[in-house]
Amino acid sequence: MTTVTALEVHDVRFPTSRELAGSDAMNPAPDYSAAYTVLRTDGEPEAGYALVFTTGRGTDVQCAAVAALAPYVVGRDVAELCADLGGLYRRLTGDPQLRWLGPEKGVMHMAIGAVVNATWDLAARRAGKPLWRFIADLSPRQLVDCVDWRYLSDALTPDDALELLERAEPGRAARAAELERVGYPAYTTSPGWLGYSDEKLVRLCGEAVAEGYRLIKLKVGRSVDDDVRRLGLARGAVGPEVRIAVDANQRWDVGEAVPWIEALAPFDLAWVEEPTSPDDVLGHAAIRRRVTVPVSTGEHTPNRVVFKQLLQAGAVDLIQVDAVRVGGVNENLAILLLALRFGVPVYPHAGGVGLCELVQHLAMADYVAISGLMEDRAIEFVDHLHENFVAPAVVAHGRYRAPHAAGMSAEMKPASVAAHTFRGVAVAPAPGELR
Amino acid sequence: MTTVTALEVHDVRFPTSRELAGSDAMNPAPDYSAAYTVLRTDGEPEAGYALVFTTGRGTDVQCAAVAALAPYVVGRDVAELCADLGGLYRRLTGDPQLRWLGPEKGVMHMAIGAVVNATWDLAARRAGKPLWRFIADLSPRQLVDCVDWRYLSDALTPDDALELLERAEPGRAARAAELERVGYPAYTTSPGWLGYSDEKLVRLCGEAVAEGYRLIKLKVGRSVDDDVRRLGLARGAVGPEVRIAVDANQRWDVGEAVPWIEALAPFDLAWVEEPTSPDDVLGHAAIRRRVTVPVSTGEHTPNRVVFKQLLQAGAVDLIQVDAVRVGGVNENLAILLLALRFGVPVYPHAGGVGLCELVQHLAMADYVAISGLMEDRAIEFVDHLHENFVAPAVVAHGRYRAPHAAGMSAEMKPASVAAHTFRGVAVAPAPGELR
Repeated sequence: MTTVTALEVHDVRFPTSRELAGSDAMNPAPDYSAAYTVLRTDGEPEAGYALVFTTGRGTDVQCAAVAALAPYVVGRDVAELCADLGGLYRRLTGDPQLRWLGPEKGVMHMAIGAVVNATWDLAARRAGKPLWRFIADLSPRQLVDCVDWRYLSDALTPDDALELLERAEPGRAARAAELERVGYPAYTTSPGWLGYSDEKLVRLCGEAVAEGYRLIKLKVGRSVDDDVRRLGLARGAVGPEVRIAVDANQRWDVGEAVPWIEALAPFDLAWVEEPTSPDDVLGHAAIRRRVTVPVSTGEHTPNRVVFKQLLQAGAVDLIQVDAVRVGGVNENLAILLLALRFGVPVYPHAGGVGLCELVQHLAMADYVAISGLMEDRAIEFVDHLHENFVAPAVVAHGRYRAPHAAGMSAEMKPASVAAHTFRGVAVAPAPGELR
Repeated sequence: MTTVTALEVHDVRFPTSRELAGSDAMNPAPDYSAAYTVLRTDGEPEAGYALVFTTGRGTDVQCAAVAALAPYVVGRDVAELCADLGGLYRRLTGDPQLRWLGPEKGVMHMAIGAVVNATWDLAARRAGKPLWRFIADLSPRQLVDCVDWRYLSDALTPDDALELLERAEPGRAARAAELERVGYPAYTTSPGWLGYSDEKLVRLCGEAVAEGYRLIKLKVGRSVDDDVRRLGLARGAVGPEVRIAVDANQRWDVGEAVPWIEALAPFDLAWVEEPTSPDDVLGHAAIRRRVTVPVSTGEHTPNRVVFKQLLQAGAVDLIQVDAVRVGGVNENLAILLLALRFGVPVYPHAGGVGLCELVQHLAMADYVAISGLMEDRAIEFVDHLHENFVAPAVVAHGRYRAPHAAGMSAEMKPASVAAHTFRGVAVAPAPGELR
């Protein structure tokens, strides 16, 4: 029997604020960081890996939250944990005492996501498969059983979901082969950070097109005049065929968003992302009714219940999913099923530290086993910090290659962890009573 | 000059699960706890006090989050901090790195609430006033300046709020005198915990009426037959004149809630509280459209943006506010103003550890300086753990007495803190760079 022997959490911080990569209207100088989570075992595979992406300060708080979950996994039988990933997720989100600290949102929920994702990574490694394939090899019934259906039944029931998944089942093998052959579309945010000069913007836009991207994204929201000027430069640099999305990072109130977005509409935008508070379902719906640009949000959407409402309210034309914001793979399966049910395309959020590595698996599993769709979809790509990962995401000619290494691709190089550890390793308490 | 010398955070836990006080459909065995927060100074007053209420496990995580905010207050001039409470609140919620961990929700947001509330406590102590009076003595303009108006302008603008507050200004003195004379209505949840026997329920219902309560609340949601039986017993015990509310603590999906609530409707209920997920604005609205019992929520509502939507969507007949769930006094001022704007009464959430002590000040300030209303309002009261506070809330004849002691009443007795400290004192790092 292989047992989980420890839950390690590392406070890893990269000094990205020095170069303004990652700068946007609400995050002027992030230090891209992670609560890097390792589930050690006494057998093979030797560990499962995951992380919570953070932007500097507070990473220690996020680490403390992950460490608090040790009693749920340390000392447990790996085979049992991996055989009931839905049960683990529901035990963690349902802990009647920890639940008070959310429920299902913020630091505690992201910590649950890390432990859940690390266990999926472990399960996929045990099976010798990349996570996207491990998920896509589960039966429709197994996938349905991974989801916590509470609060969803007014939009989607387990039976509805089972039907959707069974409909996609016959095409799985062909789509997996297609994915291996052509990869999955990527788009890039690298040219568009708010802190970059006009010259750098134009140069990076040209490079993105040369590298094969068909969609780029620019940060907006500091000044409408700046945005119009920068979009003009970008549109000139990429030509009329390449799509341009913009991201306001929660900058506006509803009334402010509408004229600002309409001022940018002539640049033929693919979408405007996070126009207002990520909690404001009705605000997104009001904005969407009044603008001609498609509206999107999701990277800060705290859980499946808020995604459900965004879809029910017709608040969005598309959504972002994030691998580490919600309660792990299980909750993202629910969100992907909801998006399919409402016919809304998913453009996964990535960048940061390791987000490309993790989220690619969800998009690819969605294509193979859930929506069956890869058209009008693309995974965000930002080209930094990948060198810190053992099996980094690979994007070539504007497409993510399907990963082959077993697991969720979250494992970092030990040397990177050591070099960027902020305050040593926080090792969780020994297993024992939940108290 | 008086300076903040330290931010102390104590992990304080009471073993309430042994007696099933506090048991409900989602929280079968809470250990009422607190991240007890003390802002020490080198002068007079010697400290400001606040807390985040928790239910056992994870209190250490909550303490770590409070400690992470030390650089914002330690080493600062107390007079300056107290002169710009709106600025402190906006600096804390706007920290571009910590913001990623919410934004404005969960562990990090409640930590901000504790630091903000401790600073209000300090400010009220400096002025020698109980917090309710300290707030009610601020000018309409000062009150407006305490609020973060971002994301609210589609429902309420600062100018609208100023007008509401100015309208209430002339009656302040008379209402303060009235409050001193008659106190503020209370209701009690003490009889209705789900873990209590029928006999204990009936006995406590009778005692509540004898003590002068005109409104009691019962936990429901474990089984509809149990609920019908218990409500029958309760209605029999209190008679037809005393109002009965029920609280489902997030137990149901939308479709499940409707017939369950209608099965309880014959008992003439004052409201049904938390019928479903606290994040489900549209779910509450759907339930409200289909039942005859007034619908309510709020104790887990993470921030003003979600309260705004509950009101915009017509999802609730009344709301609960909680003193420690959101970003402190400032955000609760926004919520009270929104409730007034939409004409929705506020029945503050209390119980737990210290929640009665803290929230009474908000309700009383609302009566004196904001809504001017005390009819169709009552503050929850649960009669336990008050003995741990230096100036406990006092309820007599079914009404809260207006507190006279300076501050927000959050200070705990040192002996109580010492006796119930779970893992010693977490003292925050020394002031310095925000990193």
